[in-house]
Amino acid sequence: MHDVQSSPDTRGIDIQRVGLKDVRLPFLIRTMDGDYQQVLGKVTVAAELPKEYRGTHMSRFMEVLLAWSRKPIAGTELRLILREIVEKLAAPAAEISLSFRYFLAKTAPVTKSLSYLDYLVETSGRLDDGRFDYLLGVEIPVLTLCPCSKEIAACGAHNQRAAIRARVRFRPGCFLWIEELVALLERQGSAPIYPLLKREDEKFITEEAYRRPKFVEDVVRDAVLALRAEPRIRWFAVECESYESIHNHNAFAAHEESHASPGPVKNCP
Amino acid sequence: MHDVQSSPDTRGIDIQRVGLKDVRLPFLIRTMDGDYQQVLGKVTVAAELPKEYRGTHMSRFMEVLLAWSRKPIAGTELRLILREIVEKLAAPAAEISLSFRYFLAKTAPVTKSLSYLDYLVETSGRLDDGRFDYLLGVEIPVLTLCPCSKEIAACGAHNQRAAIRARVRFRPGCFLWIEELVALLERQGSAPIYPLLKREDEKFITEEAYRRPKFVEDVVRDAVLALRAEPRIRWFAVECESYESIHNHNAFAAHEESHASPGPVKNCP
Amino acid sequence: MHDVQSSPDTRGIDIQRVGLKDVRLPFLIRTMDGDYQQVLGKVTVAAELPKEYRGTHMSRFMEVLLAWSRKPIAGTELRLILREIVEKLAAPAAEISLSFRYFLAKTAPVTKSLSYLDYLVETSGRLDDGRFDYLLGVEIPVLTLCPCSKEIAACGAHNQRAAIRARVRFRPGCFLWIEELVALLERQGSAPIYPLLKREDEKFITEEAYRRPKFVEDVVRDAVLALRAEPRIRWFAVECESYESIHNHNAFAAHEESHASPGPVKNCP
Amino acid sequence: MHDVQSSPDTRGIDIQRVGLKDVRLPFLIRTMDGDYQQVLGKVTVAAELPKEYRGTHMSRFMEVLLAWSRKPIAGTELRLILREIVEKLAAPAAEISLSFRYFLAKTAPVTKSLSYLDYLVETSGRLDDGRFDYLLGVEIPVLTLCPCSKEIAACGAHNQRAAIRARVRFRPGCFLWIEELVALLERQGSAPIYPLLKREDEKFITEEAYRRPKFVEDVVRDAVLALRAEPRIRWFAVECESYESIHNHNAFAAHEESHASPGPVKNCP
Repeated sequence: MHDVQSSPDTRGIDIQRVGLKDVRLPFLIRTMDGDYQQVLGKVTVAAELPKEYRGTHMSRFMEVLLAWSRKPIAGTELRLILREIVEKLAAPAAEISLSFRYFLAKTAPVTKSLSYLDYLVETSGRLDDGRFDYLLGVEIPVLTLCPCSKEIAACGAHNQRAAIRARVRFRPGCFLWIEELVALLERQGSAPIYPLLKREDEKFITEEAYRRPKFVEDVVRDAVLALRAEPRIRWFAVECESYESIHNHNAFAAHEESHASPGPVKNCP
Repeated sequence: MHDVQSSPDTRGIDIQRVGLKDVRLPFLIRTMDGDYQQVLGKVTVAAELPKEYRGTHMSRFMEVLLAWSRKPIAGTELRLILREIVEKLAAPAAEISLSFRYFLAKTAPVTKSLSYLDYLVETSGRLDDGRFDYLLGVEIPVLTLCPCSKEIAACGAHNQRAAIRARVRFRPGCFLWIEELVALLERQGSAPIYPLLKREDEKFITEEAYRRPKFVEDVVRDAVLALRAEPRIRWFAVECESYESIHNHNAFAAHEESHASPGPVKNCP
Repeated sequence: MHDVQSSPDTRGIDIQRVGLKDVRLPFLIRTMDGDYQQVLGKVTVAAELPKEYRGTHMSRFMEVLLAWSRKPIAGTELRLILREIVEKLAAPAAEISLSFRYFLAKTAPVTKSLSYLDYLVETSGRLDDGRFDYLLGVEIPVLTLCPCSKEIAACGAHNQRAAIRARVRFRPGCFLWIEELVALLERQGSAPIYPLLKREDEKFITEEAYRRPKFVEDVVRDAVLALRAEPRIRWFAVECESYESIHNHNAFAAHEESHASPGPVKNCP
Repeated sequence: MHDVQSSPDTRGIDIQRVGLKDVRLPFLIRTMDGDYQQVLGKVTVAAELPKEYRGTHMSRFMEVLLAWSRKPIAGTELRLILREIVEKLAAPAAEISLSFRYFLAKTAPVTKSLSYLDYLVETSGRLDDGRFDYLLGVEIPVLTLCPCSKEIAACGAHNQRAAIRARVRFRPGCFLWIEELVALLERQGSAPIYPLLKREDEKFITEEAYRRPKFVEDVVRDAVLALRAEPRIRWFAVECESYESIHNHNAFAAHEESHASPGPVKNCP
């Protein structure tokens, strides 16, 4: 049967990315406590296509993904997936993005009621001529309370659901668990949020948010300071988007930067 | 050229709805002040298909919609659109739903700054054997402030963006403008929202919301009372969904009911 | 601490539905082979609120859901969840909808390559004064090839991704597994689809679709015949929506009906 | 009344972007024929916030946008909007993105039936220290027919809806109208699509697509050649995503490149 994809191409164009989008598969994500969590993954995967070939073999991406669907993975395994793709497709470079909802246990502040909150996570990697670039991204729902509204109003202050989003690159040999990155950023809003709160907890969260009013600008600046203080991170992009309760549009602040190595890092080889 | 759609069908099934979804076209919506507003419409349109025919002629729906895309419309015109469809397709019954974002001028409470807020509107109709059933639906963004949080906290109270959604049927010969239905419901939240607020306005809204704490249950009950008091309405379904700022799920309350005619209605023939 | 929700209400309105939307939690769904599958669930849950009370206790819904998040469930368990809610909230009636992506193994038609396709599933139930109403809904991606295009074109025929959606109610004591309902409907398109196809399989599917051209009307009528022939089903609503490749809108057909009992049903008590 | 936003900040962080997301307003877009088209715009707008200030004045973005909502705009006006923002907020830099559905008349290939197809358009700009960077982006729905499927199948070939997306930067003093960029790219699929087709047109499109089978790789390479041949463009990113009818995931190819000036360009100053 004729292999149309492998027929020669005369247009002379190396295409930078050819692959699949919106592949949904279950994946097993390694957790900080040494176990793993099954998630519903959404994958974009692509490889560079040399100018000699008319098309890539799309089904090979799927074969690689299916095999990895049932093995625990983290950043290291993303590199292995990309190595397989590069080999199977004889491609100079390949990329993958895997996004999913990841659940973490949350303990209510007063009653200690246990529930599970889902965070959007995106792990992505690129393997180019043997060099691996890896990014970890998280989205964390928080509450923000407006400092201006608190200051000028006789009572109360408008507050709302907001999202802190961050993507980070690690120093060589280092990494943070999703759990660690979430913990670093979750405290930067006016208050964290929880799926299950009893009255005593609701009182606590309401008062905590009122004590810690924050603009999106404050959330981002505090997050920048926290990310700079983490020596395992060498680049980050961070954003806070606030679903303003007094408007039907959103306010946001966003910032990215690299930070130079502070010297040897504890716990990184 | 063979008309496959008109070929006979032996399965003996009258299909209740055959048509188009996700048709996007500009439409001109009649406004309360006698003018019209151009909107980006999204249309679902369908007709009953008698068992004798294998298929409907989908392009005829499009021809009807295209012709109506540039003429001012309201509920009355929806009936005319359906009459054309029923005739063009020799169908016993037809339905249409047209949804769009509709802008209304909003004046900030203190500085009187002018801005424009968009409301989701859905108008839908069914023409069945000459009988026309019409529904008007709106979605109104408001602010809700939690009565429980206010009561138990030493200071502040969690609040958030919420949506009031209502669909209504009118008494024969009566109708409400979108503007009227929005005005009736917008005041049922803890406070209305605005695209443009200066500091004096923000103070006013913050304090108003704090003075009028409402659960989703309160919003729905107050909306029910307001809808019952409007004699031009003979059926309604109303919902309030609150994007809780202390959780990442939503709270909602929903209710529907018919109400019997209160006798002759002023302003309706 | 004051229980604001339990304070008396004077508006005299029983609210039909009060509860939570967009709750995301993992759930374990019973599979036809006696095992279970972990899914990412999205839940809407609500209860009737008697007119005596100002508000419901939203956290109790969450407590019930959290407890059921790790126990294998199917229709029977939905009834138990609702019974708990009715008791915990002293509510006359309660409703739940649980939707998720459910994976089934797919074997490519020629090479027998194994992959996993996800289907959108929605299970929902209502418990009202002890009476339980249960619905199972599925959405199945298929391929449809246009009979008109095939007939009139010298070569080829336009085809596209389509979705078959069905919701069913069972006769008392009967039920179908998700696997059975999918199998019943998946064959009603021009061809089924697969995440992994090799060239031999692609040839097979292309030719199968060309041999079996179907309008959305054909898909729905064939699905109606199949659903009528299944004695365990007493009511169904079925729809086919085709993402037309020659347009940027969709074509659809939809139909619902009850069918009277055909007498005792094999395999139902 | 205290201006909390203007209070000094000690964290020493210039934030790169602070502003609004998801602002919806009507806008008037200049058309190639000298007129304008009213669209429903969605705006993201932001400015750099110097480290001296705690917060930006969000309402000023809104005031600028409201004033521009009713004046015809194209790329040149985006620069004026940004200049106003930079001045009103005393910001070193500002950015805007305005996206909307833009309708173009489509004439069916045989019957010449007239209809209107909507294209997603995103215009965006950045003004930084007086330097203006402008991008025009479009998304064009087309039909792609698989060359492999055509080659190996005895009859027919799978085909589907696909999207061609491109973003371009112009050479100084040059620009393309949305209409020109759409025309350049729309012909790169297997066939264009139309909202309204009669049987004769459907035959034509079906056969045209069968004559011009294209992988996503082919669409992208042909688009690259067309974009390179347009001297007014100095940078582009182009992508084709195909909603595969035999799978429930998508295939895509993407490529970006700058191209050096080919010397003086006709029609550009």
